[in-house]
Amino acid sequence: MSHTINKIEQQFLEHMYTMNAYEQALGLMEWDARTKIPEKGTDDRAEAVGRLSTELFQLTTSDKTAYYVDTILAYKEDEVTPWIRKAAEELKKQYERSVRIPSEEYQEYSTLAAKSEAVWEQAKEADDFEMLRPYLEKLVEFSRRFAEYWGYDKHPYDALLEDYEPGMTTEMLDDVFNRLHKRLQPLVDEVAASSVKPDTSILFEPFPKQKQTAVSSNILRRMTYDFAAGRLDETAHPFALGLNPSDVRVTTNYDENDFRTALFGTIHEGGHALYEQNLPQEWKATVLSDGASMGIHESQSLFWENVVGRSKAFWEYHYDMLREEAGSAFDDVTLDEFYRAINTAGPSLIRIEADELTYTLHIMLRYEIEKQLINGDIEVKDLPRIWNEKMQEYLGITPPDDSKGVLQDVHWSFGAFGYFPSYALGYMYAAQFYDALRRDIPDFDTKLQEGNLEPIKQWMTNHVHQYGKSKTPVEIIKEATGESINPDYLLDYLETKYRKLYSL
Amino acid sequence: MSHTINKIEQQFLEHMYTMNAYEQALGLMEWDARTKIPEKGTDDRAEAVGRLSTELFQLTTSDKTAYYVDTILAYKEDEVTPWIRKAAEELKKQYERSVRIPSEEYQEYSTLAAKSEAVWEQAKEADDFEMLRPYLEKLVEFSRRFAEYWGYDKHPYDALLEDYEPGMTTEMLDDVFNRLHKRLQPLVDEVAASSVKPDTSILFEPFPKQKQTAVSSNILRRMTYDFAAGRLDETAHPFALGLNPSDVRVTTNYDENDFRTALFGTIHEGGHALYEQNLPQEWKATVLSDGASMGIHESQSLFWENVVGRSKAFWEYHYDMLREEAGSAFDDVTLDEFYRAINTAGPSLIRIEADELTYTLHIMLRYEIEKQLINGDIEVKDLPRIWNEKMQEYLGITPPDDSKGVLQDVHWSFGAFGYFPSYALGYMYAAQFYDALRRDIPDFDTKLQEGNLEPIKQWMTNHVHQYGKSKTPVEIIKEATGESINPDYLLDYLETKYRKLYSL
Repeated sequence: MSHTINKIEQQFLEHMYTMNAYEQALGLMEWDARTKIPEKGTDDRAEAVGRLSTELFQLTTSDKTAYYVDTILAYKEDEVTPWIRKAAEELKKQYERSVRIPSEEYQEYSTLAAKSEAVWEQAKEADDFEMLRPYLEKLVEFSRRFAEYWGYDKHPYDALLEDYEPGMTTEMLDDVFNRLHKRLQPLVDEVAASSVKPDTSILFEPFPKQKQTAVSSNILRRMTYDFAAGRLDETAHPFALGLNPSDVRVTTNYDENDFRTALFGTIHEGGHALYEQNLPQEWKATVLSDGASMGIHESQSLFWENVVGRSKAFWEYHYDMLREEAGSAFDDVTLDEFYRAINTAGPSLIRIEADELTYTLHIMLRYEIEKQLINGDIEVKDLPRIWNEKMQEYLGITPPDDSKGVLQDVHWSFGAFGYFPSYALGYMYAAQFYDALRRDIPDFDTKLQEGNLEPIKQWMTNHVHQYGKSKTPVEIIKEATGESINPDYLLDYLETKYRKLYSL
Repeated sequence: MSHTINKIEQQFLEHMYTMNAYEQALGLMEWDARTKIPEKGTDDRAEAVGRLSTELFQLTTSDKTAYYVDTILAYKEDEVTPWIRKAAEELKKQYERSVRIPSEEYQEYSTLAAKSEAVWEQAKEADDFEMLRPYLEKLVEFSRRFAEYWGYDKHPYDALLEDYEPGMTTEMLDDVFNRLHKRLQPLVDEVAASSVKPDTSILFEPFPKQKQTAVSSNILRRMTYDFAAGRLDETAHPFALGLNPSDVRVTTNYDENDFRTALFGTIHEGGHALYEQNLPQEWKATVLSDGASMGIHESQSLFWENVVGRSKAFWEYHYDMLREEAGSAFDDVTLDEFYRAINTAGPSLIRIEADELTYTLHIMLRYEIEKQLINGDIEVKDLPRIWNEKMQEYLGITPPDDSKGVLQDVHWSFGAFGYFPSYALGYMYAAQFYDALRRDIPDFDTKLQEGNLEPIKQWMTNHVHQYGKSKTPVEIIKEATGESINPDYLLDYLETKYRKLYSL
């Protein structure tokens, strides 16, 4: 390697490290705003976050970024350190998307999104869609305009998808969701019609917060989550956040009358956290130190939450611990009863409370709505009506009000159109990984029964975590499982599990 | 006001708000690093902080800063909003100091200071001054060079003092400290020779952390600290930190075998916090939203800690609460015994554990050393010897080792030469405020006995807090008390209190 390229590579790294310092600061401000901030501090925090984000936006779209990226990519492939070349390609993508948005428009959009999120909280509370409508209308306007700035082949929605699931298109999603829906619907119907009705009353036994915290910590440790490089805190809307691989924080929410909220929330966020803790140290503070996509990230959380955390084998090992922390609440509940209760399935109103069987139906209806909204086939004012129609169509129920309907999710209120499909992709990826993983670890169930989760984490690190953002989601899923995304794996998994649970 | 100046004022404010967003981010990163960060996260945090600080340094020294400041100051005085003009003057000062330091030198210095602080921890632990010596030598070198960059009239040390106590000079400090020392030393000697020996064993009764936290929270509330605009956390080295007036955080440290650590630490930091919470909202996120100086800031913490928190009247109201939280530990201890125990005085090795009587002696010896160090009269290698000589001279004791001697304080390890005098100034200011305050609130003691601390806070807000950094320390002390700094007030306060306590 010549001296010049060596020097340029170093300067390029320095530039990324500086941008990453902003990201770490903003990440910490977000974590703090959701866990520790005093009540009166939120407005000034939002203001500071908006300003610092704009500074970072300007740095990302600076001539300096363009210069480093173009210089590195102008060298022959074998003259540049391979991963640094990958980083340059990734940053070039980010640069090119950002630079097409005028700086003032970005600032206007950021401020609007931040404000709108706060309005959403109030609108949901007041069950008043009209409060949020003017904000949503502007945000949809922005999204439609951004899609034009970014460009697309067939559907403007493709341009938005690219932010969350690089390489994914509306056409591909239509195909995958259609296949999924076709086999899923009859299964959902059969489960609903089954005479098997698990006793779910045990789910609502009082369970003190302090004891739930102990359960959450124990299970995170068992999952190989490293507490020396992270921490567990309480929040209203759980999330995991990686500032860097040595500082990855999990948050959860405690409901003393429904232990599932914290338990499965923690396992879910723990899955995200394992991804972030096991990103390669060498690439830290660069654009490659990130998940491959929202969908791949979600595959990790859902794999742990459902495939592991809702399996019987997992609870064969962990049920005693949970029982002990719960005091006497589960004394009369057998493992089998417990297992059936936590896997009860059926149509419900709220996405984040949905079971794994019906969850993707909630996503499909959101996807259908977003697509039409961005296309201009429907308008914001139509949302409550269309939401309720789709709920009837996909889940056979109609929300009693908008707060349990169209207002239930935060995503649209901060302008995240194109995000929802990632959740369903995550389900499908998770099931597809599961199939591949069992080929490599045939005694998967035995491992769970022994509480030995390390080999599972290691498989995910080998096939997913270690690549960070250096591979596309398509490459990761193909190399790990031997084929492209295929909804049949999820369907097979659900069929097997739920036919047995509901004696179908 | 013309349209042009109006527009310039707005742009200038925007510029300050942006700089302040960096400061808030850096402040939060510091708070987090001292309270919440996972163990493995510290190195990457230091790296990010270094980078973001350098970004802020570049913004502070940018042509943009110069342009706004110069444009505003070029207008006639009555054409500009008065407080914005003040802000421009303050920022001009900061700009001119910063711009004289070459950017690479600043970055080198910041990185060295951050590393050195970590080395200090190890050196203190290992009682090994030689570990820290090379770092200190470089930091002293930087400070001497910075003093030359900044310029001074008589003493290079004056240039450093300006950072902590604007307007203060070596000449003035020499005079004030000489007067203080002359009257203080005989009093200290008399107290040491007194046959009165308070029973201090009660200070070391076991006091559970959780109960101490309750005491700290109660007293903060009573002091009018607003928990909706702040929080209380645990840390190794207590501090208070104001991100903005709506988010001011207090930290404390719990010793279950010496409740004074948390109790007086909390009251002390609470005094700082009241200053930050009561800075004017209108000026928030500008350079005027800050304490007038380190000395004035310290006057607030010391006033609350000592004048209020170590007074008998304060405990006449609060002793029952403390007793209740302490379980049965204080059942046999009368209020008078308690009061005498928490005011026990006499020479000691460690500054932060010193009583209010001997505290300023610790400062004077540090001041003498710093002055000579920056002058070049002594060198870093001489520090352990000179430290021990001065301890003998000022306090009549010699440290058994360097970790209880020259290595005890963190300040020098991050290059803060010129900081220590602020602590002694704070003592003198506090006593001087006390004298003026009693003229306005003659029933001060009755207020304390009633637990009514609001009028005291209000007096401080009226005379100190509300001015932020818009007045110099000299202006504040003169307007509040009618004269310049005068050590006699502290001496009178100490004479009165300790003659009575020790029956002199």
